[in-house]
Amino acid sequence: MNSIDRLRKIFLRSLESDFSEPEWNRQPDSLYAPQRYILGIGGKRLRPILALMAAESMGRNALEALPVAHAVERFHNFSLIHDDIMDEAPIRRGKSTVHENWGLNTGILSGDALMVMAYKSLLKAPKSMIHDLFETFNQTALEVCEGQQMDMDFESLDRIEEGQYLNMIRNKTAVLIGCSLQMGSLIAGASKEVSKSLFNFGIELGISFQIHDDLLDAFGTLETFGKQIGGDIRSQKKTLLWIHFSNHQPETLKSIINSGSKNKVKEILYAMESTGSRAYVEAQRKKHFDSAITSLHNVKRNNCDTKDLESLANWIFDREV
Amino acid sequence: MNSIDRLRKIFLRSLESDFSEPEWNRQPDSLYAPQRYILGIGGKRLRPILALMAAESMGRNALEALPVAHAVERFHNFSLIHDDIMDEAPIRRGKSTVHENWGLNTGILSGDALMVMAYKSLLKAPKSMIHDLFETFNQTALEVCEGQQMDMDFESLDRIEEGQYLNMIRNKTAVLIGCSLQMGSLIAGASKEVSKSLFNFGIELGISFQIHDDLLDAFGTLETFGKQIGGDIRSQKKTLLWIHFSNHQPETLKSIINSGSKNKVKEILYAMESTGSRAYVEAQRKKHFDSAITSLHNVKRNNCDTKDLESLANWIFDREV
Repeated sequence: MNSIDRLRKIFLRSLESDFSEPEWNRQPDSLYAPQRYILGIGGKRLRPILALMAAESMGRNALEALPVAHAVERFHNFSLIHDDIMDEAPIRRGKSTVHENWGLNTGILSGDALMVMAYKSLLKAPKSMIHDLFETFNQTALEVCEGQQMDMDFESLDRIEEGQYLNMIRNKTAVLIGCSLQMGSLIAGASKEVSKSLFNFGIELGISFQIHDDLLDAFGTLETFGKQIGGDIRSQKKTLLWIHFSNHQPETLKSIINSGSKNKVKEILYAMESTGSRAYVEAQRKKHFDSAITSLHNVKRNNCDTKDLESLANWIFDREV
Repeated sequence: MNSIDRLRKIFLRSLESDFSEPEWNRQPDSLYAPQRYILGIGGKRLRPILALMAAESMGRNALEALPVAHAVERFHNFSLIHDDIMDEAPIRRGKSTVHENWGLNTGILSGDALMVMAYKSLLKAPKSMIHDLFETFNQTALEVCEGQQMDMDFESLDRIEEGQYLNMIRNKTAVLIGCSLQMGSLIAGASKEVSKSLFNFGIELGISFQIHDDLLDAFGTLETFGKQIGGDIRSQKKTLLWIHFSNHQPETLKSIINSGSKNKVKEILYAMESTGSRAYVEAQRKKHFDSAITSLHNVKRNNCDTKDLESLANWIFDREV
């Protein structure tokens, strides 16, 4: 079994055993059932795996990083509950979303409680580390909110620059990935320098990850990606691909949109390909991935074992789903 | 100037000076403006005053408790933003609510960020106290969410027992008042025993405070209370008064509701008075107030100066608004 699967198993076992603890069986159950539900319906478990792997890269037992692993997974799921409300999304990971099942109010409130549960998990770390961990976590939590707000603000803007978009996904997606690595290494005794390099590794990996997601939505195959291809194009979502194409080929875009064609999505995708937008965005994805690997080499120079982290980065880079 | 006004002034001065700090001027402003707005539109500032006063009762400078004072005020205002969404309330403290001004999504998100800002303020406490403060705060934050969920769950129940109601207001209202006192004293070096007695004082005071609120809504005068009297009765809100009356006089209540009368609210209020429900609830308010004062005497026996806290309790007990 590879390390990714091994660490996922460790995390899932811990999650399941947690669910039978008093902490997860408080009253009213109507507040806690939605939290257990969203934590239980899966996902790649990327963030907790990264936290555990960062601890192992310091030569320590992954179990030491469990307080961090649960904190980042809880925070991530809090943000999913609230994001799904904001996006009016009925489905998440193939299941109905929390607000769809329990209504808006319980969606808001169980999300709030799940954020507190994240802080609660982090407080299980050794006392001497609490201050540094909370400082990192607070900063990350704020930046995630800022990223989500920027994303919403973008909806009403006519033109967005690439730099704005990259800043938005850095906050909305990448910082929590960086924070998972940083806190996972801190709790395992990493120096500030090493933990900062791991944070940077996570940031660049996270940006590459999000750009990849946008590319898969446009050019993935339905079979492997599991949702309708071109959904972002159809809703004119401002991904890096859309931003590059609309900023560089405004006339082409306008003429396709104003045409009577029934195949607009396909025509836009074709134009994105033929005018070089796809290649540009692919190159950006590669650039941030390479930058992530460079940060990882800084960590390696400090006598940390970064083999598994590099495998995981490659797995993320090569994924088709 | 009495201590309440003096401490409110200290808090408000600190709040205003904070607003010009980088912490309150991050981007996007669309996320931070709603937070500054709700923190700025007033209220009694009861929780931060209690935190500062608790520190003074330990013989320390109130300023030492500012990290706690801001944390509890931020958390309280986070809960107001989200509660107003759940209650679909357009007005708060005579001004339009956050979601009314900025929409649902920014309401959810700026509330989330304000909760993080509460944790951020608490982290400014001396390092040696962080663990205890966060433990207290996490527990309180969860109980506030639990109380709000109970309150929502009550809406769909036919009959609620007094014990359930008291448990709900303990969580929704009283624990944050208790927590303000507990953390304000902890940061000023109080022992666990003293800080726990102050917590209990706050719990009982908070329960008495909430029962008082319900009584004022029913029997206050429009002039002093500032909102329409009998609003809770009109919406059949399950206050202690309503619960006692409907559990003890179900037939009387039914006959008024089913009558064609245009003065149902007045008739219910009259019946609550004549059947003893009002007197019962007034006695409950007094009972919890007396219990609060008893807890305060425990604190006094530990050489703390509880004079101001007792004045504040009396001010709360005697208020007409």
